[in-house]
Amino acid sequence: MTNDKFANMDLTKRIQIKEIIEHVGKDVILGGWVYRKRDHGKVSFVDLRDGSGILQIVSTGDTKVSGDKDSWGLESVIVVKGLVKERPAHMINSEIPTGHLEMEVKEMEIISPTDEALPLDMSKDIDKIHLDTLLNYRTLTLRSPKMQAIFKFSEKIEEGYREFLKSDSFTEIHTPKIIPSATEGGANVFRVDYFGKDVFLAQSPQFYKQMMVGVFEKVFEVGAVFRAEPHYTSRHLNEFTGLDAEIGFIESVADVMGKLEKCILFIAEKIAKEVSEEDKKILNFPALKIPETGIPKITLKEAVGIINKKRGSKDDALDLDSEGERILGKYIQEKYQSDFAFVTEYPTSARPFYQMPTKDGKFTESFDIIFRGLELGTGAQRIHDPKLLVESMKKHGLNPKDFKDYVDLFKYGMPPHGGWGLGLERFTKQWLGLDNVRLASLFPRDVKRVNP
Amino acid sequence: MTNDKFANMDLTKRIQIKEIIEHVGKDVILGGWVYRKRDHGKVSFVDLRDGSGILQIVSTGDTKVSGDKDSWGLESVIVVKGLVKERPAHMINSEIPTGHLEMEVKEMEIISPTDEALPLDMSKDIDKIHLDTLLNYRTLTLRSPKMQAIFKFSEKIEEGYREFLKSDSFTEIHTPKIIPSATEGGANVFRVDYFGKDVFLAQSPQFYKQMMVGVFEKVFEVGAVFRAEPHYTSRHLNEFTGLDAEIGFIESVADVMGKLEKCILFIAEKIAKEVSEEDKKILNFPALKIPETGIPKITLKEAVGIINKKRGSKDDALDLDSEGERILGKYIQEKYQSDFAFVTEYPTSARPFYQMPTKDGKFTESFDIIFRGLELGTGAQRIHDPKLLVESMKKHGLNPKDFKDYVDLFKYGMPPHGGWGLGLERFTKQWLGLDNVRLASLFPRDVKRVNP
Repeated sequence: MTNDKFANMDLTKRIQIKEIIEHVGKDVILGGWVYRKRDHGKVSFVDLRDGSGILQIVSTGDTKVSGDKDSWGLESVIVVKGLVKERPAHMINSEIPTGHLEMEVKEMEIISPTDEALPLDMSKDIDKIHLDTLLNYRTLTLRSPKMQAIFKFSEKIEEGYREFLKSDSFTEIHTPKIIPSATEGGANVFRVDYFGKDVFLAQSPQFYKQMMVGVFEKVFEVGAVFRAEPHYTSRHLNEFTGLDAEIGFIESVADVMGKLEKCILFIAEKIAKEVSEEDKKILNFPALKIPETGIPKITLKEAVGIINKKRGSKDDALDLDSEGERILGKYIQEKYQSDFAFVTEYPTSARPFYQMPTKDGKFTESFDIIFRGLELGTGAQRIHDPKLLVESMKKHGLNPKDFKDYVDLFKYGMPPHGGWGLGLERFTKQWLGLDNVRLASLFPRDVKRVNP
Repeated sequence: MTNDKFANMDLTKRIQIKEIIEHVGKDVILGGWVYRKRDHGKVSFVDLRDGSGILQIVSTGDTKVSGDKDSWGLESVIVVKGLVKERPAHMINSEIPTGHLEMEVKEMEIISPTDEALPLDMSKDIDKIHLDTLLNYRTLTLRSPKMQAIFKFSEKIEEGYREFLKSDSFTEIHTPKIIPSATEGGANVFRVDYFGKDVFLAQSPQFYKQMMVGVFEKVFEVGAVFRAEPHYTSRHLNEFTGLDAEIGFIESVADVMGKLEKCILFIAEKIAKEVSEEDKKILNFPALKIPETGIPKITLKEAVGIINKKRGSKDDALDLDSEGERILGKYIQEKYQSDFAFVTEYPTSARPFYQMPTKDGKFTESFDIIFRGLELGTGAQRIHDPKLLVESMKKHGLNPKDFKDYVDLFKYGMPPHGGWGLGLERFTKQWLGLDNVRLASLFPRDVKRVNP
């Protein structure tokens, strides 16, 4: 193997900024991006950013500089060697954990220059940048501490989700994203050319997670979900990260709601404990409110009644539009001091064929979970009786022959079961109070955008 | 909400089989699948299987049975209430953790009958069933303890992968699977109809994980990867679970190999500690061999020389075919007592444009990792200089304008970086010595199969 050098300083000796607290009074090597820079003649004050934090470094006329000396603009990558020191008391930046320290730079090497003007000034307030600009220059704007904090937060939600379910004997699974037929009967799926044959992208792991209940009893998946919905709104993505789960041997759909509630409470505790103080300041999110008595449950009919009353309208349709969800969310927050609500008793006609009907056949043993006025996800008990399933398919205008493997499953013995599907990006958006779900997706896909 | 009952016994009181050890001498409720059954007149001995284990239960003439009494065949789902007892010493089954216990069933309810003969006898040796049959009836065959154990094992690999990287300050990311252009220049990608526009399924998170190095410095992803390769072999899948990682501020590609080696060692330790004794028996896999001196490194040229010598051939092409990989794997095992090898110094022309060339431009700072004679994955240092990148694209016959967002990334400041991509299914297959990679995928997708 050749041993080409890409930096003169030894990068294997580099430490991360978060580690410097243990190196005060010593020389260390750091590497990172020039986040902010103030030049005062021969002295430059630079906020250096790496994957772990930000540190002020000071270069002077004595600093030995190598590389392209004229082009270490914002976001250029530099490697520096120097002395870690305490900052004078009046200069301490209490906003960041390394704000009491700085580096006196002895050697500096410009590794990756930025000689062209950047399309955006990343040191300014990121909240004032237009959404389209934020997304067009995503590879740059994601570097801002605010955007970083959003995705560290989102990672923490996922971590809590996984930790809770694993500790409760759920098995993590990966189900196929390429599927032979449209899960819920044809609408809103993307078509894929598969060696000349038409197949589809899974709009949920629904059938597969049910199949896996037959294997592991309790399963969950974190994975890509695709929806060919033509909506262009602040809450729709055409590709998102689904947080799915499915549970065997339930007594009723109440067990599913109970488990989901416990899962959310667990994640909330984890967030409270493990999100850094710095990120809490940057993100400035309100505490999650769930009453001691649990997440309130309200039937769809009651919900529609409340919304009609607030609106002064008399719409009989058993349906929630997005404005209705917002009105309901506000009502629930005021009446129950709860950020979440379960809306139950959706009519059979409005729900997928596989949801368990109530005894009279009019409603389903299902729910939507509303988070601060936005649908976070959906759940239900599923039909586990093959005859009832075939009946339900026919009522929904579907041909059971198109779903042979799925229908056969229920002839092989399946317990009462149910589960949910949530969207990680909506979870993040609502928790942090972001204006748009796109801000909670690294590289959002919508009707108009597949770039970058 | 209605309160339809799906079982007469209270399923909220049900415990899992693994928990019964704490309930000896007491009545409990269990629910599960009829895995094996022997009828002796009025007495039936049943091996009941749930998501946590297997237990012998004994029903007699005194057992009150409800539900469809004539159709509790294999795989039917039953709920039972009865006394947990120690089995007589000569009846103990030492193969399973609950083999010293049994239940004397007082009540039994048939929840999900299997009145038709099952297409397969699941109580027989699963290894003797033909692969196509195993896959055609996947919803059934996955229920066998052997198949269950394979996927619990695979889950453990993923768990170890995530744990190691998170503890080393890597951030977990989710990058888009729907991408605007073919990552490596057009071949082997599936085309998707995206609202009337042609887009593609990501054949790796390559560009996106590099973009995220600019944000978090060290990132990893566990997610679906799609390859439109027309190969029908025992080692190819058209959709698999990618274990990707990318690391900023590397000194050279040796850092990438070093990190991957540590990651594998960590996973191996975790597997040794955390896979149950029962599953170890069922899976019967050999211990992983990695020499104290680390995973051996061998240049591609040396590897080809060794293979030619063994074959008695004189093929000058710098390339490894699958038989060559097997010969090399055997050589490495014999010479170094190592299950893994890094093959290095692949020629520029044989590798994607984004891999860092060596100084002379002929080779790349890259590697393949061979696991017991099969390519487990690939890694490299990447080009971080925008001019060199554009040059390399042109040499590979690509138009830099087709990759604008990607090329722009390197004008925004990027450190030396590199990473790898592995396949979870191949990892599992090789570790367990499975004949076919399909056995390590819950619902495999290949040129001929998208069902179930």
